[in-house]
Amino acid sequence: MSGSQRQMTYKEAGVDVERGDQASDLARVHARRTFRTEVKEQAGTILFNARFSEYKHPELVAACDGVGTKLKLAFISGNHRTVGIDLVAMCVNDLIRRGAEPLFFAPYLAMARIDLGVADALADGISKGCSFANCSVTAGETAELSDFYRVGEYDLAGTAVGVVDAGNVVSGENISAGDTILGLASSGLHSNGYSLVRKVLLRKHDLEDRLPSLDHRPLIDVLLEPTRIYVHSMLALLKEVPVHGIAHITGGGITGKITRIMPVGLTAVIERHRWQPHPIFSLVQSDGEIEIDEMFRTFNMGIGMALVLPSSYATNATSILSEFGETVIELGNVRTGNPAVTYVDGISDPATKRDKSTP
Amino acid sequence: MSGSQRQMTYKEAGVDVERGDQASDLARVHARRTFRTEVKEQAGTILFNARFSEYKHPELVAACDGVGTKLKLAFISGNHRTVGIDLVAMCVNDLIRRGAEPLFFAPYLAMARIDLGVADALADGISKGCSFANCSVTAGETAELSDFYRVGEYDLAGTAVGVVDAGNVVSGENISAGDTILGLASSGLHSNGYSLVRKVLLRKHDLEDRLPSLDHRPLIDVLLEPTRIYVHSMLALLKEVPVHGIAHITGGGITGKITRIMPVGLTAVIERHRWQPHPIFSLVQSDGEIEIDEMFRTFNMGIGMALVLPSSYATNATSILSEFGETVIELGNVRTGNPAVTYVDGISDPATKRDKSTP
Repeated sequence: MSGSQRQMTYKEAGVDVERGDQASDLARVHARRTFRTEVKEQAGTILFNARFSEYKHPELVAACDGVGTKLKLAFISGNHRTVGIDLVAMCVNDLIRRGAEPLFFAPYLAMARIDLGVADALADGISKGCSFANCSVTAGETAELSDFYRVGEYDLAGTAVGVVDAGNVVSGENISAGDTILGLASSGLHSNGYSLVRKVLLRKHDLEDRLPSLDHRPLIDVLLEPTRIYVHSMLALLKEVPVHGIAHITGGGITGKITRIMPVGLTAVIERHRWQPHPIFSLVQSDGEIEIDEMFRTFNMGIGMALVLPSSYATNATSILSEFGETVIELGNVRTGNPAVTYVDGISDPATKRDKSTP
Repeated sequence: MSGSQRQMTYKEAGVDVERGDQASDLARVHARRTFRTEVKEQAGTILFNARFSEYKHPELVAACDGVGTKLKLAFISGNHRTVGIDLVAMCVNDLIRRGAEPLFFAPYLAMARIDLGVADALADGISKGCSFANCSVTAGETAELSDFYRVGEYDLAGTAVGVVDAGNVVSGENISAGDTILGLASSGLHSNGYSLVRKVLLRKHDLEDRLPSLDHRPLIDVLLEPTRIYVHSMLALLKEVPVHGIAHITGGGITGKITRIMPVGLTAVIERHRWQPHPIFSLVQSDGEIEIDEMFRTFNMGIGMALVLPSSYATNATSILSEFGETVIELGNVRTGNPAVTYVDGISDPATKRDKSTP
């Protein structure tokens, strides 16, 4: 009202409430594409019906994660369309590994100054990932934090909520000697180990390099390949097969994540010769001169999920998972012993003499 | 295994998986302090029972938010004990304004290098806030993102999930002419407008300054005062009184947030002389030479929640809220007219001639 030029406004302090509202509106439009039949909007509030009549003893599980430093590759390349899929994948895969069906999702995006184009691309990826995972975006926040992030950079995190019957929580407790370990192929690096990947690869290669070992695809495309979402195949499997343990292979790699689910006194014998990891792993390993054990402690090495189940169900499980588009690898089996994970590298290794129970 | 010095490890690339695990363990200890009776831990998975037998048509609502640039004051002062309370408050107050009872919460913390002391202080605040709001921490993520955040800085966000009966969602749709508007006193700035506050105050004052107008408390203590959590008083109120609309006064200030809930053709007549905002607002206004209307578009101005309810319930509502420790201010009432919010500044103003229905 007064014309003083010394007056300060919130906008001048670096926060544009209107732009924030535009970002929210835009996120809302993308979110609506993901609404399941249980979702309704009531005067701006998004509700998810909690009757869960198909569940005997419904329990809610939450999983929170971020995309991590894979985002740096989105910043460098200017391609923000797929990291939203990574975000959803990290969270919903973490629900499914406990046996829970994803229901809804809330993403958090923070940037120094809201860039509506970038926010739109991110929301589009989130919406695609959620649609694929049959998980509804029912909340979210886009924050403008000046002085936190570099211009053109952001952080992206989220929380997914799922439901599981109390009796069907997959924990690893039932893992027994003789169980078979199946692996589901990953789409590449997924969303872990990127601090190391960037350090190793970007000093030797250009992001546009098309290496023969990577089928002449631009390196950036291979690095930004979105994380695979295992929800449909796993939900189908869990309906038919008593799965004893599931490891979602993220930070800590195959070694770390399988270790977590193994009961004391049992070892997961993994036969490395059973599969050929995606060539991006060989490239990182050779360029970084990284020890193979460090690779298995850091990366998924081509396996996004590892399932432990009674060997008698292995054939049936493989056929269900394959039907839903998974590439299934028999990684090995469970034996009494230590440590939690034992690697067998060659077929001549004595440890590969298989039990009769896992033909 | 080999001794080559050129070999790279994940740790050398800036990510310490072990430190990440320690942070998770620590967060888990704090989380356990918040578990309601519906929560159980089953082999590492935290489950929240979803029977909701007290609800006729239970609907889940999610609310996602961050602390925003108030965090900068935690960085500068080294006091990280209370911003966790702010985080929880922002999310659970956003559930309660829709009529939903908070159930569980998932915080996301990202820093360049995990500082276990800081992570512990933050988790402690989150746990205190959640305990107070009767909301269980059932998930969470602590991410180490080198090259994203400055050393000593971090971002903190979270998602709260609540439940509401389908018929009891508070939306503002029922707001009618003649309704009374009650305000619940805030504890200070809460978690909004800090970009402006820092810009205005830190060029004139030292954080340790003890100004007479602020009761000689150190300025930093006033600025870090945690956001008030309105869950208990509001849940008690919602059981007894048909509340037509609730505005949680955050970004956009009193003007923005009340505007959002007002139906077209009705105006919320707010009598500014009815209360004295916390003196921190006068300080920001005078130091920044900020227009009063801009103040009301940016800050809560001493009112953390505004409730719209039938005038016949105003006395009962005030007594319930007061019993639960709230300071209740009758802000004004609803009339036909435009714009959505009308301010009346003085008692001599003709617009203050009150309706008979709101004594």
